[in-house]
Amino acid sequence: MSKPKVVILGAGYGGLVTTIRLQKQIRSGELDVILVNKHDYHYITTHLHMPAAGTDHHDNARVEISELIDERKVRFVKSTVKQILPQEKKVVLSDEILSYDYLVVGLGSETETFGIPGMKEYAMSIKSINSVRFIRQHIEYMFAKYKMQPHRKDYLTFVVGGAGFTGTEFVGELADRIPVLSRTYDVDPAMVKIFNVEASPSALPPGLPSDLVEYGMDVMRRKGVQYKLAAPIKECTSEGVILGNGEFIRSATVIWSGGIRGNSLLEQAGFDVQRGRVKVDTYLRSFQYPEVFITGDCSIVMDRDGSPYPANAQIAVQQGYNAARNLISAVRNKPLKPFVYDYKGTVASLGRGEAVGLLKVKKVKGKFAALLKKVIDARYLFLIGGIPLVWKKMIFKQKATTRNHHVSG
Amino acid sequence: MSKPKVVILGAGYGGLVTTIRLQKQIRSGELDVILVNKHDYHYITTHLHMPAAGTDHHDNARVEISELIDERKVRFVKSTVKQILPQEKKVVLSDEILSYDYLVVGLGSETETFGIPGMKEYAMSIKSINSVRFIRQHIEYMFAKYKMQPHRKDYLTFVVGGAGFTGTEFVGELADRIPVLSRTYDVDPAMVKIFNVEASPSALPPGLPSDLVEYGMDVMRRKGVQYKLAAPIKECTSEGVILGNGEFIRSATVIWSGGIRGNSLLEQAGFDVQRGRVKVDTYLRSFQYPEVFITGDCSIVMDRDGSPYPANAQIAVQQGYNAARNLISAVRNKPLKPFVYDYKGTVASLGRGEAVGLLKVKKVKGKFAALLKKVIDARYLFLIGGIPLVWKKMIFKQKATTRNHHVSG
Repeated sequence: MSKPKVVILGAGYGGLVTTIRLQKQIRSGELDVILVNKHDYHYITTHLHMPAAGTDHHDNARVEISELIDERKVRFVKSTVKQILPQEKKVVLSDEILSYDYLVVGLGSETETFGIPGMKEYAMSIKSINSVRFIRQHIEYMFAKYKMQPHRKDYLTFVVGGAGFTGTEFVGELADRIPVLSRTYDVDPAMVKIFNVEASPSALPPGLPSDLVEYGMDVMRRKGVQYKLAAPIKECTSEGVILGNGEFIRSATVIWSGGIRGNSLLEQAGFDVQRGRVKVDTYLRSFQYPEVFITGDCSIVMDRDGSPYPANAQIAVQQGYNAARNLISAVRNKPLKPFVYDYKGTVASLGRGEAVGLLKVKKVKGKFAALLKKVIDARYLFLIGGIPLVWKKMIFKQKATTRNHHVSG
Repeated sequence: MSKPKVVILGAGYGGLVTTIRLQKQIRSGELDVILVNKHDYHYITTHLHMPAAGTDHHDNARVEISELIDERKVRFVKSTVKQILPQEKKVVLSDEILSYDYLVVGLGSETETFGIPGMKEYAMSIKSINSVRFIRQHIEYMFAKYKMQPHRKDYLTFVVGGAGFTGTEFVGELADRIPVLSRTYDVDPAMVKIFNVEASPSALPPGLPSDLVEYGMDVMRRKGVQYKLAAPIKECTSEGVILGNGEFIRSATVIWSGGIRGNSLLEQAGFDVQRGRVKVDTYLRSFQYPEVFITGDCSIVMDRDGSPYPANAQIAVQQGYNAARNLISAVRNKPLKPFVYDYKGTVASLGRGEAVGLLKVKKVKGKFAALLKKVIDARYLFLIGGIPLVWKKMIFKQKATTRNHHVSG
């Protein structure tokens, strides 16, 4: 009798945690587990705002998958998923076809530009190690270019579209980075403009009480961030952005953090999607194909009031735990366990030493919130890689951020 | 009676050394000395190939002028020269007009593109702190862009036009830099191509004996440099270069080191020029205006056979000594001393730990030549700034080059 075969697509939060929990809990020979990912590393999406701004090394936002998985229990395939064929229980990779008994789809998100003209072509977004290395270099390149063409003030103007979680955390780091870049390139910091542009009337992650929003915006403004609220971007061009009221911000750098949608492979595979995401049943399974579990940004989980929970790392990690458990139960013919999201709160960084957040009912801000943010980061590293990983990343980061001079490579 | 007024334009090798020698030798109240420079730092042109490739920090290639001059004896004006009016004995700066009794023009060179179409628009050149920061960032940006668009192999192809002194030294550093950048950006180093393209049939600085040329080219080839010799560039486009034989090298990075000409202000001022440079008399003065001394790349000094000496740092420094001495003699009504170039030889770096050179009659190569190159660099630092400057730059450099990770700023 052949062993049941679980294929996990994507080593993001959902897919990786599912894999790690499975390898911890399955008995030898009970299950074939295959993890497919297009890179040989997992990246810590919640940390990407720092390497994107250049305030931390991108290696601090990724972990080699080989460090996390037990190769006796999990086969890792580095490949790109081309197609999901749920009716045939197969997935097509760029160089092989895998069949499965159970599938976990944790393929993450794509950028949602809401049809804003030019956004796809001209804006960058914070979504992978590759994209944040690109953003970091783009920003520094603008300083170098400005010194060659000092009439091009648009090289020193940075527009961040979206003042939600990612936009806010990135803007906080970018503002911290400007003095360093200004020094390196002999640029007057007053020449540099950062605009955080947001369609809704409020900045910072939704759900924060107004006093925290004000606190956070004050912190940001003191660092030189200019907010444009209730200011939807109407168009992005090669020369900047046009706002709803017709205002034009000339800028050679537009970073878009205004929205995400699920991986388009799901829609292509015939799953019922809402903005690319699949509404899952109480056990995180597709309603159409009960052997397909969907986690993270590809999935929609409803709260008690019937509204979808926002996509974030916290829910994806918890889904990973539940998916692994339910996979094992399914294989062992035991009853599945419903997924219940235990929302612990949110803490958004505002750059070095500052953060705001809401922990179930407790508000946090300032240095304490910033410390808490570090604890949350460390907790995740511990969860996936134990003490050694916490040690490695925290120590390395310490080193990297205390250096002040440009050293490339 | 008012003091004679000496205005020195440009704090390159010629102008700076003239200034330093003057301030050392003039008696208090004997002479008004004004040094004009567009930056508040002097840069060490012979070191620029390293920050251009990113193998050293650009701060190691510059020194604050305030560290070098004695403000009781020299007035430093940070400004850009707009016009020289030799008949009126005036120079027009961007924000003031200076009159002079004696003028020293050490305004350096501009890039000579020999009318090659597109070269001015699309190629970069190694000529200032601003330009080398730009080149360094451009190169790294190409790696980041390649990871976003892996079909764009031209992002990983680097063309250096000109295999003379500057081209060779830069290519050596660039080849050293590739493994580091490849690691940082997860790029297979074998994907990266470096072409050194040269119109003449031989690479490396002219005048080296053929066995040293061969040695040097071997060193370079082992690092992955591909030579295209007897291959004039016919055109440079936004997509690469077209060679004389019609071959097209697709590349997003073209660095031009194929030639220089004198600063165009001289021609605009009515000086007789050859490729922007002024043939000077035996005391380094203009034949038209004997109160105007011209040094460095702006000047042409003939050798005994009536051929011009090549423009380089060595001759500019020696001219600075001579100009200062003759200025003082002129003021004191003493006879001037003819300039005699004491050519000590040339050592060209081939990257880390390798160099080739010819010292009057002695050939040098390998590690010894590389060490000698360092001694030559240190000697210059000592000359302009004494032991403290040697110490500062050498120590700082040591630190910078032993770091391996990208840390920005």
